[in-house]
Amino acid sequence: MPEIREHVSPAEAAPPYFGGIDVGGTNIKFGIADCRGRTLGADRIPTEAERGPQDAAMRMGAAVRALADRLGIAWSSIARLGLATPGTMDIPAGRLLTPGNLPAWHGAPIRDLTSEAAGIPVTFANDANAAAYGEYWCGAGAESESMIMFTLGTGIGGGIIDQGQLVDGSHSSGGELGHIVIDCHPDAPENSLGLRGTLEGYCGSYAVVGRARLAAERSGGLLVEKMSAGAELTPLLIAQCAEAGDSVALQTVLETADYLSVGIASMVHAFDPDYVVLGGAMTFGGAGHPLGEQFIERVRTQAYLRMFTHLRGQVRIDFASLGSDAGYLGSAGLACRDHFPDGAPS
Amino acid sequence: MPEIREHVSPAEAAPPYFGGIDVGGTNIKFGIADCRGRTLGADRIPTEAERGPQDAAMRMGAAVRALADRLGIAWSSIARLGLATPGTMDIPAGRLLTPGNLPAWHGAPIRDLTSEAAGIPVTFANDANAAAYGEYWCGAGAESESMIMFTLGTGIGGGIIDQGQLVDGSHSSGGELGHIVIDCHPDAPENSLGLRGTLEGYCGSYAVVGRARLAAERSGGLLVEKMSAGAELTPLLIAQCAEAGDSVALQTVLETADYLSVGIASMVHAFDPDYVVLGGAMTFGGAGHPLGEQFIERVRTQAYLRMFTHLRGQVRIDFASLGSDAGYLGSAGLACRDHFPDGAPS
Repeated sequence: MPEIREHVSPAEAAPPYFGGIDVGGTNIKFGIADCRGRTLGADRIPTEAERGPQDAAMRMGAAVRALADRLGIAWSSIARLGLATPGTMDIPAGRLLTPGNLPAWHGAPIRDLTSEAAGIPVTFANDANAAAYGEYWCGAGAESESMIMFTLGTGIGGGIIDQGQLVDGSHSSGGELGHIVIDCHPDAPENSLGLRGTLEGYCGSYAVVGRARLAAERSGGLLVEKMSAGAELTPLLIAQCAEAGDSVALQTVLETADYLSVGIASMVHAFDPDYVVLGGAMTFGGAGHPLGEQFIERVRTQAYLRMFTHLRGQVRIDFASLGSDAGYLGSAGLACRDHFPDGAPS
Repeated sequence: MPEIREHVSPAEAAPPYFGGIDVGGTNIKFGIADCRGRTLGADRIPTEAERGPQDAAMRMGAAVRALADRLGIAWSSIARLGLATPGTMDIPAGRLLTPGNLPAWHGAPIRDLTSEAAGIPVTFANDANAAAYGEYWCGAGAESESMIMFTLGTGIGGGIIDQGQLVDGSHSSGGELGHIVIDCHPDAPENSLGLRGTLEGYCGSYAVVGRARLAAERSGGLLVEKMSAGAELTPLLIAQCAEAGDSVALQTVLETADYLSVGIASMVHAFDPDYVVLGGAMTFGGAGHPLGEQFIERVRTQAYLRMFTHLRGQVRIDFASLGSDAGYLGSAGLACRDHFPDGAPS
């Protein structure tokens, strides 16, 4: 079951309700929320992408319907679904392009397939953008006016919300914050797409692991001991060694914060949000965890140093709060947005 | 007189009309436009900033009124004014903060002073953002959905419009594109604000002149000859020498294009606009000029190389078209936007 932060019963939350679906390579998470972003229930099913998009659409429609049944919610009180998928897409057409982890779905009109299966309208979104919208709607950024989210993991994604407006982009590629360039030098590292000097090339998990490996080979320490004992070098191992006092590992974490702060400063000068949110799997423990707090404090210090003086301290930088619920909640939020184009009742 | 691209008579353009005012350190440009962005007339007055903001507001109100009189336009048919000013500001409060070139105006409630002087409502904006909005409303980006403008000059400014929504920012600092970071190295050049590795630090006129000076001292050529003869090294001299075949000067221009392309690629991955517009004084001749065309073609080539393959060629990159009219026209456009919050009649 996905984590649920705020769980209300249908008796506490008036309809209309909104379904949100977050398609990943392994699992499809989904939930039902009210127009204030409170979850009534959530669940997941395996993606089984190889069975194809038509099959998945039928299963997604049936699964959300079954969840509504279990919650005692009439299907007619669910006004709209939100559907978030990874990879490249054409949002206005409701179509996938070539998502890397859903090869059998290339080109599928997934929005309309899902709408037909569910019998209600569907709002379509990129998964990282939906997660950002979730944090804006009912997570860490719920009090903010304009918010940028960086999602840290194998790749780096993101989403931008300017005064309530999610930046989908003219080619459905808005918020690709891993591909902003932080190093213009010709010898800057390339990322997996062959793009040079990008934020992902410095802060994606492969880059972090690569930097730790080089430093450990040079300086020794706990990372080398662990690797010699057969451990795989991962961001988690780096975090564990940093917590255990290994200076090479800690330095790697703080350098990652420094590089991330460069990307944050760029986005702050471009967008001037009041909130920058950091989410994803690679937040070194995240909020309330000593290493996570050390990481984000370094991000704040370095990002502020790179900002206009009148923005320092004014732009809040904090961890996301919805965890893996952000995607389906944000999808539900986008469905709510489209159902109430003049604003949802408060 | 400011340049006027499309000039219509009141008989050809139905009211309501909108006034636009663009305050600079030396001159205040202003004009009157219809809701399609067609100029009925424009003029300028000296800023005489030392006389203070109250005096300027009175003169701006009187000057726009006099222009309306000359055009035979009843003041009652002008629905709203737009006012753009340089430097730091608090847009919601309608107040200047500390604009560098208007020291006597610090803290002035310039929006309300102007509104009282003119007797009609005033929309307040940053001058670079207003210029971007002008290009979006009735200039180079008039056919675009989402647009980013880079303004190249002593400093580098900009503006972002996402699906019609101008990004003012939460602290009235949106679109400060000169301060995005393109070089994360600790030895990267600082700009005038002490920020390191920024786009302005590589592409602002001082940076371009500095790079040309170093290269000329190393390699000689026409720039050294001109400087030895007493010429001041400026972007204009660099452009003239590049046109005359000097390889050091041409290389400086093309390197500037390369650095600019880094900033463009970052903004494209963040915002995914369909149009990137280059304006300002330092466009090396601009559209239709051999060096300007060589400059922008290099920008395109290098920016596309740094983009997702599916965006290459899809994002149009071109010169701005409104010249120094962009600021007052954009201000009038923002007044029109605020007068017709549900969209102007077409």
